[in-house]
Amino acid sequence: MNIGIVGLGLIGGSLGLDLRSLGHYVWGMSRSADTCAQAVRMGAADVAGPDPAELSVSDRTDVVFICTPIAAIIPTLANLVPYLPPRAIVTDVGSVKAAIVTPAEQLWRRFVGGHPMAGNASQGIHAAARQLFHQRPCVLTPSSDCEALATLRSLWQSVGGIVLECSPADHDRAVAWISHLPVFVSTSLIQACLQERHPHIAHLAQQMASSGFRDTSRVGGGNPELGRLMAEYNQTALLETLHTYQQVLQKTIAAIEAGQWQDLEAKLRESQEARSPYVSALLD
Amino acid sequence: MNIGIVGLGLIGGSLGLDLRSLGHYVWGMSRSADTCAQAVRMGAADVAGPDPAELSVSDRTDVVFICTPIAAIIPTLANLVPYLPPRAIVTDVGSVKAAIVTPAEQLWRRFVGGHPMAGNASQGIHAAARQLFHQRPCVLTPSSDCEALATLRSLWQSVGGIVLECSPADHDRAVAWISHLPVFVSTSLIQACLQERHPHIAHLAQQMASSGFRDTSRVGGGNPELGRLMAEYNQTALLETLHTYQQVLQKTIAAIEAGQWQDLEAKLRESQEARSPYVSALLD
Repeated sequence: MNIGIVGLGLIGGSLGLDLRSLGHYVWGMSRSADTCAQAVRMGAADVAGPDPAELSVSDRTDVVFICTPIAAIIPTLANLVPYLPPRAIVTDVGSVKAAIVTPAEQLWRRFVGGHPMAGNASQGIHAAARQLFHQRPCVLTPSSDCEALATLRSLWQSVGGIVLECSPADHDRAVAWISHLPVFVSTSLIQACLQERHPHIAHLAQQMASSGFRDTSRVGGGNPELGRLMAEYNQTALLETLHTYQQVLQKTIAAIEAGQWQDLEAKLRESQEARSPYVSALLD
Repeated sequence: MNIGIVGLGLIGGSLGLDLRSLGHYVWGMSRSADTCAQAVRMGAADVAGPDPAELSVSDRTDVVFICTPIAAIIPTLANLVPYLPPRAIVTDVGSVKAAIVTPAEQLWRRFVGGHPMAGNASQGIHAAARQLFHQRPCVLTPSSDCEALATLRSLWQSVGGIVLECSPADHDRAVAWISHLPVFVSTSLIQACLQERHPHIAHLAQQMASSGFRDTSRVGGGNPELGRLMAEYNQTALLETLHTYQQVLQKTIAAIEAGQWQDLEAKLRESQEARSPYVSALLD
């Protein structure tokens, strides 16, 4: 197929590497000339440039993946529309879906929302790697365009993804629990540590921090722009999970204040068991 | 030296492996005959058994490490006292210090509190491994017995530990921030997910969970008994950090409710920078 990838970061670059190795022709697009050159050099795109008019966006293009940050997805699609052949399928990889899919479908009839649950702490084309999507869940939102949906399902499966189909609203609620809520739980942990009044205890805490603190603080100490966009574009679902979290935390604190050690241990045991189905497919 | 290790789990077993490989004679003690046999078989102890009277607890013993769970440290020490030679140095590896050091010093003059910041998700003698303490911080609490302190500092350094000295109260406050608070922040995340009312969204969340959820929930889904003991034995310091966390979380929620995206991103950026000194010595 003739595939466009707009936004050549970790996700776009990694997708390009995998799709080219499967024999597809990949044209890439990025505002940065350096990124374009690097994408071609490392084999993530056959050609790459900043301007849709000068690219292979022509009657040959079958599928376009928009892999920009969330806030740029709709403006990017609006810029592409004049150059897209009528049959082109367009999708995205944004981590929210309701705020994207509705306006995107209005701009382009053959748009299908997507979200591969892949990535790591790195950013940018230099972090792109093969097999990033291997065995990772990849959400597609429903579409009346069965052919478009089947094409995208097949492409994600070809790079190893496990395709799940769900509504934008259900997607956003689910990712609020397992992706967006953890960011704000985690960043609040770091912010809380900054409140320590005694510098020598703060310093001691830094010296003593071990894998427990490292892991619990990881997503809260990640890309600030990404965290902000999760909150901005998934505000309602995120706030519902945060309010639930707040209530649960209050109960945990009350149990510790009251010295209800058996109840506390029972809750910890329940957490231990409840965690398994979330992480069974992941290495710990 | 002639070294006793009482409690042959991950920490005691790993310490035994390292100390024996440095040429020390190690006698181990555990209530479980299987654990004793396994410790000797894998080279974590020269001899091991359940009864201090039948062991090498004699004039030959230089140092005893008590490596039991927190709740058993003081009772274990009380049981050992009748068999200890007067010059024996006794220490522990418990993750709280104030609740241990005061009663332990009353039971045994040459007691020095200790806490190596090492471990992993595994438990028991089978998980014991060499080099567990390599480059890991190891706290010793102050003692007027300079010789005892110097001996323990030297032993921990010989197995690769980075020795820090601090008061029991400062230790407990610091570990509350970086070890105990994360457990309850993390377990509350899992508990919050259990509140999702719609089974299909809960199932979707489980299918979509990725490394972010895995890492943020790891310590909250760990050993329930250990989590309970952290709260029980470090209640005051833990509650202070939990109350601070609660206030910080409330501010984070308020910023998201008010749509203060720039402020939120600034806080996320602050968290990203503030995290570095905690994790700089750890692989991410």
